[in-house]
Amino acid sequence: MSPGTRLDPWFTSYAQRAHGLAASEIRALFAVASRPEVVSLAGGMPFVSALDLDAMSETVARLLRERGATALQYGSGQGDERLREQILDVMAPVGISAHPDDIVVTTGSQMALDLVVRTFCDPGDVVLVESPSYVGALGVFRSYECRVVHVAMDDQGLSAVALTEAIAQVRADGGRIKMIYTIPSYHNPAGLTQGQQRRHEVLEVARTHGILLLEDDPYGLLGFDGVVPRAIRADEAEGVVYLGSFSKTIASGLRVGWAVAPHGVREKLVLAAEAAVLCPSNYAQLTVSEYLATNPWMDQIATFRELYRERRDALLEALGDHMPPGTTWTEPTGGFYSWVTLPEGLDARAMLPRAVAALVAYVPGTGFYVGDAEQEANRRSLRLSYCYPTPERIQEGVRRLGNVIDDELGLLATFGQTPPGAVRAHNDEALMTTPAPDLA
Amino acid sequence: MSPGTRLDPWFTSYAQRAHGLAASEIRALFAVASRPEVVSLAGGMPFVSALDLDAMSETVARLLRERGATALQYGSGQGDERLREQILDVMAPVGISAHPDDIVVTTGSQMALDLVVRTFCDPGDVVLVESPSYVGALGVFRSYECRVVHVAMDDQGLSAVALTEAIAQVRADGGRIKMIYTIPSYHNPAGLTQGQQRRHEVLEVARTHGILLLEDDPYGLLGFDGVVPRAIRADEAEGVVYLGSFSKTIASGLRVGWAVAPHGVREKLVLAAEAAVLCPSNYAQLTVSEYLATNPWMDQIATFRELYRERRDALLEALGDHMPPGTTWTEPTGGFYSWVTLPEGLDARAMLPRAVAALVAYVPGTGFYVGDAEQEANRRSLRLSYCYPTPERIQEGVRRLGNVIDDELGLLATFGQTPPGAVRAHNDEALMTTPAPDLA
Repeated sequence: MSPGTRLDPWFTSYAQRAHGLAASEIRALFAVASRPEVVSLAGGMPFVSALDLDAMSETVARLLRERGATALQYGSGQGDERLREQILDVMAPVGISAHPDDIVVTTGSQMALDLVVRTFCDPGDVVLVESPSYVGALGVFRSYECRVVHVAMDDQGLSAVALTEAIAQVRADGGRIKMIYTIPSYHNPAGLTQGQQRRHEVLEVARTHGILLLEDDPYGLLGFDGVVPRAIRADEAEGVVYLGSFSKTIASGLRVGWAVAPHGVREKLVLAAEAAVLCPSNYAQLTVSEYLATNPWMDQIATFRELYRERRDALLEALGDHMPPGTTWTEPTGGFYSWVTLPEGLDARAMLPRAVAALVAYVPGTGFYVGDAEQEANRRSLRLSYCYPTPERIQEGVRRLGNVIDDELGLLATFGQTPPGAVRAHNDEALMTTPAPDLA
Repeated sequence: MSPGTRLDPWFTSYAQRAHGLAASEIRALFAVASRPEVVSLAGGMPFVSALDLDAMSETVARLLRERGATALQYGSGQGDERLREQILDVMAPVGISAHPDDIVVTTGSQMALDLVVRTFCDPGDVVLVESPSYVGALGVFRSYECRVVHVAMDDQGLSAVALTEAIAQVRADGGRIKMIYTIPSYHNPAGLTQGQQRRHEVLEVARTHGILLLEDDPYGLLGFDGVVPRAIRADEAEGVVYLGSFSKTIASGLRVGWAVAPHGVREKLVLAAEAAVLCPSNYAQLTVSEYLATNPWMDQIATFRELYRERRDALLEALGDHMPPGTTWTEPTGGFYSWVTLPEGLDARAMLPRAVAALVAYVPGTGFYVGDAEQEANRRSLRLSYCYPTPERIQEGVRRLGNVIDDELGLLATFGQTPPGAVRAHNDEALMTTPAPDLA
């Protein structure tokens, strides 16, 4: 054993599902990117400083004084009943009507995702996802050894035509499709939103083929144009599992999310949740419940909305100012992200170390794809997030990024290719399977 | 479809691992048992009312005022660094020295259990457990389709001789043993504690056979005799994964626990944790951290210890007063539980509805075993917990239980058998796989 090498004595003992998990080199890079001098357009951290922290402090202090013995005790595996009733109010704007019994509260909606996949997917089962798709969901599918099949998006989000074709193709190959995973509103990372017509088409495809729709909706209330898109779940109760979250409407550090599921599925989710964590935190749940009951939560969401709209505007303006010809990007109408496609010949992954050296960070697009061919086809893509930095910082970051891209194009014109980056292509897979929390 | 029947349209879509999950009829019974007139000796809820709730309230209010933007934000998948340093102090009394990097903070130690099993166990892999074992752990093993093999205990806890025999037997049968799961201190449900000599013997068996020890220690600081048992992990770092929890030393509603694991395993656990929940709640973690930094937490644990000691005394005295000849029980020196064995011919599971009718509840022992033969051999067993009711209520509960047992013995003498209970034997398995949170 050479010095500095660490042999893992348990290496041969791990489960099959654990072998795909490995830390990504890109994490070290993002550790650098978290330095204050770097403008990070990489993370998906909500700007929680916009909360009234004094009011939150008073809310929790009162909760612990008045109901501390309940807030600090074990609770139900399904989640606090009063909170489940309040969640109905929170879902009313997206058109969902349900019963509190239909809801399972989870440790963030990431855990709901995990429980759904745990409940449905055997190794080799197929999950259809958008192209690109949320890196945290891909990590879950991977951890249960699912086969992920990407389906094309257009400017209306997930394509119903491509979805139909993908289903036919997978089934012709003998694949067993367990669910369609979709983010219809303010997509992470694509920055796209399905219109109502498209939602109906996607739902019809799912119904026709008897496939469960897993609708992930963390950003639904964060639209910038005064509209709240109607959830697919609002029009179909038996065929949809809907995932909601307080991470972006209150605070991500609470780790409170939920699933709305048909009766039989919900029972399975509760049993799986009890095996996983016994019960979600009463402390976090009652904090959310007390906050919703005693604070102007709809006004707060409006504050967040306005904040993120302003940052979205700053991003789009800066992209217009600083991106060279041949660069394209999506124009999000809500949420946190824009999806950028670099000019022909560039490689966003290879460029990242140079961007970080120029004090700007982003997430390379390859992280949002599973499979060599899909990653290879999307090497020009990257995700920019505008949720956390101030408008001024966003503009400075995009200016730096524009310079980096110009330099790359110069190298390309001179040498016919850009030099390889410090981060190798074969790590894309690792990035995909292991989202660092602040990057997901 | 007959009225009242609910067909699950997704029934054929579930994963193999989900088919074993089903709700237990006994839950309905425990819903009755949660009425205030029933003395519940069933639940494992810590008596959190013994906390200084005003001090807790002030601690959290200060945290949110001063560090709210951090407490309410996403954090690291491995857990807050300062908390991991403080956990070292909390583990010092059990003799563990480690580095903060060795620790993974989880949503209660139940989640640590889940992550360890997820990381190590393929379907059919064998886990060796005590006889009886913690129902929440059995649920996790079941949810990953492990094969559970019980190993006998004696008055020193897990028998090293029986462990050696079980390993030989399983391996002769071609079984692949992934871990030995043990609760050396103040065992749930057995109420037993391994002495130091026995711990060394168990560790030697694990080392000799190259099997990972999973040491679960939620009660280690809650001993009644002024001693803190030395953890097995204190003497072996590479071969042990140690699970700790704040559920019994601070508050269960926070859902903050941890694992201490060797380097390679810890890396896998962090990646699995990120897939499962992205990151543990910063809010709950920083609450624990601030509490540990600014409150007399060791004095609080001493308060809990004294409270539970008094309740243990009440239980043992009442058992002496009210149990008929032929009944035996363990005398716990810490923790929450005593394990009772009824006289020959009785059946604790069948007796439970009659006990609840007589306004006292317990958990039948069969729930702590996997497998028909093991359950059949332990039908006379039940678990009594003394953590939550007052000493007076404990004494009243045991008095009622004594009357129920006397009645059963009378029926047995008259008819040669007791009538079957309303809850059927084939539900034991379901009870085992699905602990309601307050019963685990």
